[in-house]
Amino acid sequence: MSIVRSASISPLDPASAEPYYRQIYERVRGAIASGVLRPGDRIPSARGLATELGLARGTVETAYSLLSAEGYIQARGQAGTVVAPGLDLRSPVAEPRRDSRTPTDSFRADSVLPFQMGLPALDAFPRKIWARLGARSIRALQPSGMAHPAVFGMPALRAEIAAYLQVSRGIDCSPSQIFVTSGYRHTLHLICHALLQAGDGVWVETPGFPPTRELLGHMDIAAIAVPVDREGMVVSEAIERAPGARAAVVTPAHQSPLCVSLSLPRRLALLDWAASNHAWIIEDDYDGEYRYVSRPLPALKSLDRDGRVLYAGTFSKVLFPSLRLAYLVVPEAQIDRFEQIALAFAGGSPELTQTIVTAFIKEGHFARHIQRMRKLYAERREATAAGLESVLGDHLRIDAQPGGMHLILRLLDGRSDRQLAARMRVEGLYAEALTNWTPDRDGAPALLLNFTNIDSLATAEKLAKRILNLI
Amino acid sequence: MSIVRSASISPLDPASAEPYYRQIYERVRGAIASGVLRPGDRIPSARGLATELGLARGTVETAYSLLSAEGYIQARGQAGTVVAPGLDLRSPVAEPRRDSRTPTDSFRADSVLPFQMGLPALDAFPRKIWARLGARSIRALQPSGMAHPAVFGMPALRAEIAAYLQVSRGIDCSPSQIFVTSGYRHTLHLICHALLQAGDGVWVETPGFPPTRELLGHMDIAAIAVPVDREGMVVSEAIERAPGARAAVVTPAHQSPLCVSLSLPRRLALLDWAASNHAWIIEDDYDGEYRYVSRPLPALKSLDRDGRVLYAGTFSKVLFPSLRLAYLVVPEAQIDRFEQIALAFAGGSPELTQTIVTAFIKEGHFARHIQRMRKLYAERREATAAGLESVLGDHLRIDAQPGGMHLILRLLDGRSDRQLAARMRVEGLYAEALTNWTPDRDGAPALLLNFTNIDSLATAEKLAKRILNLI
Repeated sequence: MSIVRSASISPLDPASAEPYYRQIYERVRGAIASGVLRPGDRIPSARGLATELGLARGTVETAYSLLSAEGYIQARGQAGTVVAPGLDLRSPVAEPRRDSRTPTDSFRADSVLPFQMGLPALDAFPRKIWARLGARSIRALQPSGMAHPAVFGMPALRAEIAAYLQVSRGIDCSPSQIFVTSGYRHTLHLICHALLQAGDGVWVETPGFPPTRELLGHMDIAAIAVPVDREGMVVSEAIERAPGARAAVVTPAHQSPLCVSLSLPRRLALLDWAASNHAWIIEDDYDGEYRYVSRPLPALKSLDRDGRVLYAGTFSKVLFPSLRLAYLVVPEAQIDRFEQIALAFAGGSPELTQTIVTAFIKEGHFARHIQRMRKLYAERREATAAGLESVLGDHLRIDAQPGGMHLILRLLDGRSDRQLAARMRVEGLYAEALTNWTPDRDGAPALLLNFTNIDSLATAEKLAKRILNLI
Repeated sequence: MSIVRSASISPLDPASAEPYYRQIYERVRGAIASGVLRPGDRIPSARGLATELGLARGTVETAYSLLSAEGYIQARGQAGTVVAPGLDLRSPVAEPRRDSRTPTDSFRADSVLPFQMGLPALDAFPRKIWARLGARSIRALQPSGMAHPAVFGMPALRAEIAAYLQVSRGIDCSPSQIFVTSGYRHTLHLICHALLQAGDGVWVETPGFPPTRELLGHMDIAAIAVPVDREGMVVSEAIERAPGARAAVVTPAHQSPLCVSLSLPRRLALLDWAASNHAWIIEDDYDGEYRYVSRPLPALKSLDRDGRVLYAGTFSKVLFPSLRLAYLVVPEAQIDRFEQIALAFAGGSPELTQTIVTAFIKEGHFARHIQRMRKLYAERREATAAGLESVLGDHLRIDAQPGGMHLILRLLDGRSDRQLAARMRVEGLYAEALTNWTPDRDGAPALLLNFTNIDSLATAEKLAKRILNLI
């Protein structure tokens, strides 16, 4: 591998009609095509080349970004920028304008790592059906569907979600209580603006999903840490510590990340507290569908007699995350308030994704997909746990859990979970350290490993051996 | 037209495996299919039917929403709910599950009204090309493209936007300065969180785009009204009134809604003020591409030597609004701050829409479309103005403007613009009253009429006659 000097890029033409960034782009592409630059060769930094050519750094960066997006070059952090090592000049990437793949595909495959958290089984998604519905939806695009979408969500989608929640999660709500959002953060943000104020306190599970704490912080809302035991959030302790909190964020189905379910007595205690304090319960039901030991539990929202529960659902886990489609169910008495806030802060979700999802639900694919995934995840969970245990049994213990999409590997011998997770990342394995899910980073060390994309016992064992090498 | 009693809906079966909402849905559908309910018939209110059947109101509403979404019934506000008047039982809507149209299409056509503000020419959009790129993008969906999208935007899209801004708007920026958002409100919201605080004051053009003022209000930021004259925002007056403001929101290309351009001396004065006060300029460049008397002016951001300008661009006007895709360009020194805020509040835009737009730009359709629209809008503007003037010339005067997508019709004789706009709405014509664009609703009365969807002089005259009847 050689370090290539700027000299290998032929001089730019100030008189050309082509802007400089395009000229740089063409020249680098040309140098690669002609073999002057070869896969693995280092190219000058954007800063360096800009200085040398007397151009703004942004101009060179634009050219490099295009080259990178099209797969010609790769940024390697400290190691600089190189011509893409695997670049096959006969492959479509060399002719990106005729390439039907998405521009970044060439290097995106790397971005899904074994054990990556928060992902459903991407290989098991019915992509052909999806593509058929998608193509149909786009072909059917009419001027009326191009104007501003309904801000609270497409009526047809809100109706389908209401129907689904009634059957699957035991929630009795009307479509007007449903607000389509772009994800959990968007949902939580709407709730904060609609119902909370700067300075308010909110109970938060500890350990708990870090983005909740982070978003509340940006809204100047105090996250009050509440411990979690085998029955979920310890509500009595929360009441003792901060009875005047204005809300509680809970993950009742499978606590995030410990996967325990909030027990019925705790659910009732929480509802009682909210009712008598006019406080709010924010139910983050990110994966309520995925329970394996028995039928999924009804949502906490299904017990909400006093209109205190805000229900946050998402399509990220039951469909896929890059869809950016989620929803919020608000108590009937809060509809006006949420309509006002939703109108102020956002313009709705793209009509296209809403149309495809509506068709997917309506035609029965959604219910079938969830059924299939429930079965598949039970199998993959068992296979992953067995594979990890057989290889790593001396070093860790896997929690028994009723549901969820990841395993919790308790590390024995007081080993640091953050160190091991960092080592795994370097080796191309994804892991999250449980101690990063508490505000002071203490607690028992454990790894959180998503199992939904581990396709067999053999794969799990192979990956476990790679982990063993790092211990 | 008869009012149908609940009796026409056969009794529900409590022992059935079908949930109640589905039973209601099926029964109403059945009654329509069998002719018991006919187009135009009124059906019981959800509340009434729920009481009668002893069900939760939400259950009936869910059934009605599905029926409405599929085109069987229509809500008529005070007039109640009726079986869709135009319902043709042989048409696809009677078999929605085999209907390839989007579920709500049947009644969405009504939602785009003549003169509707904020819309590009929806009939002139290259829908076939779009559908081809869309189908291709969906078919090419790989697991890697289903995982969480890049939060700041797809690298390929950010690179294309940077390249476009350089050529078309004179903005020299790197892709890392670009943040893809879901629209102007999302953009403004990010800026408020990143750079402003509750209690800050912000200069706002008066008259000006009402959502700006509304969103700032929800963030507890004071909107300071600054008048607009022929050269745009009167910067000297703003400095006099509130020199310590933390930011200014401006629409330099075509002031929203007066369509005047911010003059060069004013641009420089604004930049000077921002630089010496460490204040921010938020440039809302919602339609900078659409100027007809000469070449589009470079963006204010192109003059930003001190890194004080936040540039808000959008695809709503150059493509279409239901796409929900926009972007923000931040000064290089602010990249870290915006990355932090973007990560806290959102999970990125859908991969699919980003992929399609990237391909649309990359393959040259975007530049061609803008060129075509510039020409078409110049024609439609002239035709619309001529048609309105020939019929309504005694009652109003149309402002001369260099660009934009709407006309400003000054009402003579002190007529109320709000009253006339309201009357037009009742008659199915869209109009906005200029006085609604000022906080105290004063100022000269005028109507704002979008011309981009008025396809000929004849159409304009026909519509003008309908307006004349209302005067």
